[in-house]
Amino acid sequence: MFENERPRDECGVFGLYRHSEAATLTYFGLYALQHRGQESAGICVSRKNNKMVSHKGMGLVHDVFKMEDLARIEGGSAIGHVRYSTTGDSVLANAQPFVAQHKGRAYAVAHNGNLVNAHKLKQELEESGSIFQTTMDSEVFLHLFVKNLKDGNVVRAIQRSVAKIEGAYSFVILTCKGEVIGVKDPNSFRPLALGKINGSYVLSSETCAFDLVQAEFVRELDPGEIVIINEDGVTSIKADPEPKTASLCIFEYIYFARPDSTIFGKNVYQMRKAHGKRLAQEAPVDADFVMPFPDSGNYAAIGYAEESGIPFEMGMIRNHYVGRSFIQPTQSMRDFAVRVKLNPVRELIRNKEIIIIEDSIIRGTTAMTRVKALRDLGAKKVHMRISCPPHRFPCYYGIDFSSKGELIAASKTEEELTRYLGLDTLHYLSIEGMLEASGVENPEDHFCKACFDGSYPVAFDPAVTKCCMG
Amino acid sequence: MFENERPRDECGVFGLYRHSEAATLTYFGLYALQHRGQESAGICVSRKNNKMVSHKGMGLVHDVFKMEDLARIEGGSAIGHVRYSTTGDSVLANAQPFVAQHKGRAYAVAHNGNLVNAHKLKQELEESGSIFQTTMDSEVFLHLFVKNLKDGNVVRAIQRSVAKIEGAYSFVILTCKGEVIGVKDPNSFRPLALGKINGSYVLSSETCAFDLVQAEFVRELDPGEIVIINEDGVTSIKADPEPKTASLCIFEYIYFARPDSTIFGKNVYQMRKAHGKRLAQEAPVDADFVMPFPDSGNYAAIGYAEESGIPFEMGMIRNHYVGRSFIQPTQSMRDFAVRVKLNPVRELIRNKEIIIIEDSIIRGTTAMTRVKALRDLGAKKVHMRISCPPHRFPCYYGIDFSSKGELIAASKTEEELTRYLGLDTLHYLSIEGMLEASGVENPEDHFCKACFDGSYPVAFDPAVTKCCMG
Amino acid sequence: MFENERPRDECGVFGLYRHSEAATLTYFGLYALQHRGQESAGICVSRKNNKMVSHKGMGLVHDVFKMEDLARIEGGSAIGHVRYSTTGDSVLANAQPFVAQHKGRAYAVAHNGNLVNAHKLKQELEESGSIFQTTMDSEVFLHLFVKNLKDGNVVRAIQRSVAKIEGAYSFVILTCKGEVIGVKDPNSFRPLALGKINGSYVLSSETCAFDLVQAEFVRELDPGEIVIINEDGVTSIKADPEPKTASLCIFEYIYFARPDSTIFGKNVYQMRKAHGKRLAQEAPVDADFVMPFPDSGNYAAIGYAEESGIPFEMGMIRNHYVGRSFIQPTQSMRDFAVRVKLNPVRELIRNKEIIIIEDSIIRGTTAMTRVKALRDLGAKKVHMRISCPPHRFPCYYGIDFSSKGELIAASKTEEELTRYLGLDTLHYLSIEGMLEASGVENPEDHFCKACFDGSYPVAFDPAVTKCCMG
Amino acid sequence: MFENERPRDECGVFGLYRHSEAATLTYFGLYALQHRGQESAGICVSRKNNKMVSHKGMGLVHDVFKMEDLARIEGGSAIGHVRYSTTGDSVLANAQPFVAQHKGRAYAVAHNGNLVNAHKLKQELEESGSIFQTTMDSEVFLHLFVKNLKDGNVVRAIQRSVAKIEGAYSFVILTCKGEVIGVKDPNSFRPLALGKINGSYVLSSETCAFDLVQAEFVRELDPGEIVIINEDGVTSIKADPEPKTASLCIFEYIYFARPDSTIFGKNVYQMRKAHGKRLAQEAPVDADFVMPFPDSGNYAAIGYAEESGIPFEMGMIRNHYVGRSFIQPTQSMRDFAVRVKLNPVRELIRNKEIIIIEDSIIRGTTAMTRVKALRDLGAKKVHMRISCPPHRFPCYYGIDFSSKGELIAASKTEEELTRYLGLDTLHYLSIEGMLEASGVENPEDHFCKACFDGSYPVAFDPAVTKCCMG
Repeated sequence: MFENERPRDECGVFGLYRHSEAATLTYFGLYALQHRGQESAGICVSRKNNKMVSHKGMGLVHDVFKMEDLARIEGGSAIGHVRYSTTGDSVLANAQPFVAQHKGRAYAVAHNGNLVNAHKLKQELEESGSIFQTTMDSEVFLHLFVKNLKDGNVVRAIQRSVAKIEGAYSFVILTCKGEVIGVKDPNSFRPLALGKINGSYVLSSETCAFDLVQAEFVRELDPGEIVIINEDGVTSIKADPEPKTASLCIFEYIYFARPDSTIFGKNVYQMRKAHGKRLAQEAPVDADFVMPFPDSGNYAAIGYAEESGIPFEMGMIRNHYVGRSFIQPTQSMRDFAVRVKLNPVRELIRNKEIIIIEDSIIRGTTAMTRVKALRDLGAKKVHMRISCPPHRFPCYYGIDFSSKGELIAASKTEEELTRYLGLDTLHYLSIEGMLEASGVENPEDHFCKACFDGSYPVAFDPAVTKCCMG
Repeated sequence: MFENERPRDECGVFGLYRHSEAATLTYFGLYALQHRGQESAGICVSRKNNKMVSHKGMGLVHDVFKMEDLARIEGGSAIGHVRYSTTGDSVLANAQPFVAQHKGRAYAVAHNGNLVNAHKLKQELEESGSIFQTTMDSEVFLHLFVKNLKDGNVVRAIQRSVAKIEGAYSFVILTCKGEVIGVKDPNSFRPLALGKINGSYVLSSETCAFDLVQAEFVRELDPGEIVIINEDGVTSIKADPEPKTASLCIFEYIYFARPDSTIFGKNVYQMRKAHGKRLAQEAPVDADFVMPFPDSGNYAAIGYAEESGIPFEMGMIRNHYVGRSFIQPTQSMRDFAVRVKLNPVRELIRNKEIIIIEDSIIRGTTAMTRVKALRDLGAKKVHMRISCPPHRFPCYYGIDFSSKGELIAASKTEEELTRYLGLDTLHYLSIEGMLEASGVENPEDHFCKACFDGSYPVAFDPAVTKCCMG
Repeated sequence: MFENERPRDECGVFGLYRHSEAATLTYFGLYALQHRGQESAGICVSRKNNKMVSHKGMGLVHDVFKMEDLARIEGGSAIGHVRYSTTGDSVLANAQPFVAQHKGRAYAVAHNGNLVNAHKLKQELEESGSIFQTTMDSEVFLHLFVKNLKDGNVVRAIQRSVAKIEGAYSFVILTCKGEVIGVKDPNSFRPLALGKINGSYVLSSETCAFDLVQAEFVRELDPGEIVIINEDGVTSIKADPEPKTASLCIFEYIYFARPDSTIFGKNVYQMRKAHGKRLAQEAPVDADFVMPFPDSGNYAAIGYAEESGIPFEMGMIRNHYVGRSFIQPTQSMRDFAVRVKLNPVRELIRNKEIIIIEDSIIRGTTAMTRVKALRDLGAKKVHMRISCPPHRFPCYYGIDFSSKGELIAASKTEEELTRYLGLDTLHYLSIEGMLEASGVENPEDHFCKACFDGSYPVAFDPAVTKCCMG
Repeated sequence: MFENERPRDECGVFGLYRHSEAATLTYFGLYALQHRGQESAGICVSRKNNKMVSHKGMGLVHDVFKMEDLARIEGGSAIGHVRYSTTGDSVLANAQPFVAQHKGRAYAVAHNGNLVNAHKLKQELEESGSIFQTTMDSEVFLHLFVKNLKDGNVVRAIQRSVAKIEGAYSFVILTCKGEVIGVKDPNSFRPLALGKINGSYVLSSETCAFDLVQAEFVRELDPGEIVIINEDGVTSIKADPEPKTASLCIFEYIYFARPDSTIFGKNVYQMRKAHGKRLAQEAPVDADFVMPFPDSGNYAAIGYAEESGIPFEMGMIRNHYVGRSFIQPTQSMRDFAVRVKLNPVRELIRNKEIIIIEDSIIRGTTAMTRVKALRDLGAKKVHMRISCPPHRFPCYYGIDFSSKGELIAASKTEEELTRYLGLDTLHYLSIEGMLEASGVENPEDHFCKACFDGSYPVAFDPAVTKCCMG
């Protein structure tokens, strides 16, 4: 699977309670979460004088923030956000954190997920005179929050607001008093973890950000939990009643999260390797070597090779200097964008039987190009093994599987797909295998696997809910 | 008077009903209005498909808009805005037009002026759950508007909203149906004119924008008038009862408006020349020549020279290539920023008696530097004549007289000021002279001259009203 | 005359011997000389450790130099250069000063003028194995210089090199020892002046740069003079024999030089005013007012008005915010670029008889547009008076009269031109009048007026000499 | 080994004879060679009308070239160059290809290597009056070339010039007639290969560029060979006598070249794997897994794991979004730059015995930081194996081993280094092992290994030869 047809996550969030370098550490945190959203980034800081300042921009974290931007907003409590591209005209307006003021107090919200009843909530709010500047769920949430803030109790306002929203959400919220609050939906679709740093506390979508800012991982938030970080330390408000089951997005393990992160209590690298091992058991094949399409397939490939005893090679070489845009040749080389990123090692491929390990196939066009490239170099046989089941259903909880196209597995059988991609054999990991390999007890009650089997854990009105199939 | 201590206007607005090049023409309109605000610019377009798109940015019009920006938003009805710098953290957020959505419909507002009861209105709105993203009066107005929109009648909603606001306002409003609406306060503090272009209509703060887009001037809006431009042409709703008096900002003539504009029914160039002639009558002095500090004093100087018969010279040469920022020398030349813009012609000055004409003095530091430069070149005598009365009072209706300093005329007598500036003689135009020279009958009932005499035509609560003395 | 059809000078040069802020002061000097070349700028500094550093770039001085650029090269002796646009592919390579190294020593040259035998010299140099990186005369000069440097005597090498070159040149040269050397051709086509600053010395194309860096004007260089500035102070080597006559470019007075400069011993402002007075005597006409096309015609217009007693007005208003490029409308307003810069004051023009004063007409298209604009506003009569004779011949000494077009006066009679431009009457200043008004004795022996009468003071081979008619 | 202490190559070169998309294909070629130089890039095109055009800039290929840059120079024959950073003031001037003109003809040269007698040649050239604008060997070569061009025979001029230069060089040369010429030194220090594309020919430092532009690899150039590509096809002039031995830079295999390139007739990936296998034989150790420091150690690590039977893991996760510069925190996290690029997978490391495979150690500071990070995560044992011998001698043939520091292996024993880096054990590949694993007969006569043993194949004067130890 390759960039222009990759699934895209809704975001990464980060928050840090009072630190003299809060903005800089949040910047580092977003750097570590960059893979969760590359199209805009923002940091909002609540300073000691109750003043809220922010800086947001389009592009990667290191493009958006210059030294002077951070210097301008440094000091206090901070939350940050990275976001994938939005369509529409006023994209910067949609960059988060969303900040608004009410009665002289500012609040900021950063969101990862997707509210399935946002449309209905917005209608109700507009009836009472609310106006909206963005299309973001976080603006809807902030309106709800302010409506519920009548007695000035922030936590109660959050609880009341949360009671109204449905879907997937991992919020970090910042008040002008410097409180940092984390909120997770009762299904726990998206990860959100608590860490400790120099006596203060930090929240992050993934633990890889803790490593970078040298924070200590404390724990994942529980389903439906609200965590308030302020001068009293950390206060937790558990969902009442506590959810018996969860719907952790299993695709976070397969694709989104960084391998060095521990999410929902399990390390991602090890989960991927376990999927690769299981795949070797489910779909063995003889070959000269096992090879990932880097870097997404790396860890499952290592697992597959280890389990099967077939040598592991890294036969596709990545160009580390590829920028965001290319000059397209006018006549030839239409697939330059695909080929510049990864180049197969000619001498390794010729006359060999190869097992390719991939983490998923969405539209399949790039995979087809890659397989053809291997054939052109003289590969004798090309087998492909996918470390997850076929994607057949859209996600309504925060993943955009395809910007323009179709989920190819929804319209083609495995046999058709084998031919379409030019493969000798193709096998997906089974749903059962994926769940069992997770090492979790009763995995059916732990994971959302709706994109594979269509069993959606939270109901929605398909007519108005924003789905993410494009 | 010179840049870093110049008065600053609140803005310039422009609007155009349905044109295939609406965005480009609005861009040209803002180009012509650039002198009314140099710190941000924005255009909002309502396209035929009821879609509202916008582009805003910090800086000058030609920096903010690139070809692709206009291409992206071209076609339909458009409004635009130029704004002077704001302090605060999120300056881009404060760029106008302000756009918001309500029940699937977008509205945009661009504002020139200052609401004296904005603070109170905001408090009331927040009580009912409104949240604010900016500190702009136009956001307050849009909240009011939406609250009053219950029956869907846009014009009635504007009338109801206008009934609540107090102060100076010239609004242009754009609806997602493409209607362009102009609104002027009952005092008519700020200019707003209607023009005609290729069968369509256009609104602009000043007529110089009509010249540039080749529109025909129709008329100035009346005090309290609402003008609706839509597929039925132009509909006017007059204030009821129509105001008997007005409070046209006379400082628009003296300083802000471009000399080639006709505002409130009078040409600015001719008004300035009339002020200069009157000044020559009130404060004659013998000298070798009359010279303006360019370009603000040019037209009054021509009037003074013509009336007095003393030769006119342009002895300060402007550097046309001065950019927005300089590299400051570390040791010497602290006043480089002043000197690079204007350089006196040495051979003209030496041994001469000179009358300098200026349009106003706010803090006086740059005038002092200039006068000293003339003395250093050997000027025998330096007289200064100011083509308006001394500024002694802040403006609450949309002019920021000084970013950091004091109105020097409020603390120094004319005699003290003569010494302070290093002059031989100094005279201001009298209030009486200024009004009489205007050529208007009963000028006392036509102009706001509060910055000269403190007689404010609209009451305000000084504790919370944003004044513009800095 | 207007920007896209204005004559263009070959450059401005500046040099400063040892100063702790040499680069910054040179930057200021170039700021003051910006009107002599807007397309590239460069500064070269020779530091105390014999190291030569430089910074050059395309664009205006304030775009080319950032704080860090100057900081990097600060301290020592410096020369600088501004240049007009060159066509060709590698334009930055053609930015000056031209720097090269020879035997571990670096030399830098900045040039204003045009060598008429550059082509022949280049051929000779190439025969002996020289290679060239640019198309600049300064590179040719530096090759000659190095060839003549065999005994290590810099001054002698310059003298020997100068003996070989023909045409117009005002050089400033910098050695890695920090010497700054000024060289002027025996005809003295282009200005070059010596100034004094804090015990050190400075060279500049025009004295307006001395004013800005607060240097004291000492004197203009004599025809054929070489001035060496080093630790011994200023050494002058006069031409031997000293030229009896000179060929000062009179168009420097009429158009190029800044009015606040004194060049060739006369102030430019006063010269222009004298031309205007003479024009009033030669070509009187009755009218309501005299008006310049700003800013080029300002000073001659003041002279004309003063001499004729007809009122002076500034009826074309300049937009001070015009950037370097515009967005062109697709359907209408083809002449936006012309109209955005200057807008006539409608109320002043209507029903009036007007005398327009211009400094020159090259192609005439913009003048035609402007005259039409005045007619459209209702001007009753439009007379035009040009403060120099008609341009009929190209310049080979450093002025590019037209990038693409023709000298309109070479192909049209005054009568034809009157009709072509839509005027009631048109008159040029006579050659005789121009010379007499200069106030110089025997002006025929003082000025180059080849562009008016074709009498070229330095012979050239028209087949290979770069002329500047385009 | 990590970025700020990595060895740096002198460059990558690319050339292409006549193609309608010559500039674009060269751009792609440079994209593939980007790893050979990241600080400047340039393309020079010789068009059919004998006109030479070029575009160069500082930065990465995709930053230097915009669509309009390529469009401006498209069509004809082209050569390109990528270069590592130079110190000094006028860095852009040092970007290649170096272009110069002589007798109306332009020539361009791009160079990879280092001439050991450049200093002496420059002195001789300066004696005859040559001046230099850069510090590049390619300028020296172009001077020699022009001196030898008297009879107009380009090839003979190259032969004569080559006879004078000593050291390492792989040139691509472009003439204004469109000929593309490749030249390799008799020792064949640096790679240069010939390829075929659509009936035309192409030259490249590495074959990975052929893959990207879809050219077919023909062959590596022989030692001392000159290849001329023109309308007659490819003409080869072999060295006379042909060298019996060569001095291929073995460090190109170990570190510089891309693994998907075939240089000097061997695939780089497979060479690295062979080194890893040999290393497993020479320095076995028991451990839980083998792990590379990505990506440099990847292929030797795969070889080591395969040979030893110890599992392979990729326990350091690369952040793919790291930009060129970071914001440095003021108080903490001094080693952010190291840590942001690679993060160890905590769960994989804890309580494990690990073998790290690296390709080389130059200064050792980053390796030390990485090892400490593994210890901090609870690694039980950390062994390190280096897939080349210790670097003890500087390179005079085109590699810059260290910008500021020392070769740590030159001053510390293996034992000292083990302690310094905080390792349990450390072993380097032996010189003997490195050569034998290469699979080449008589490897002593094939490779330059001077950086390991100080036996320099081409003599030089150490007093004036630019070495690359910094």
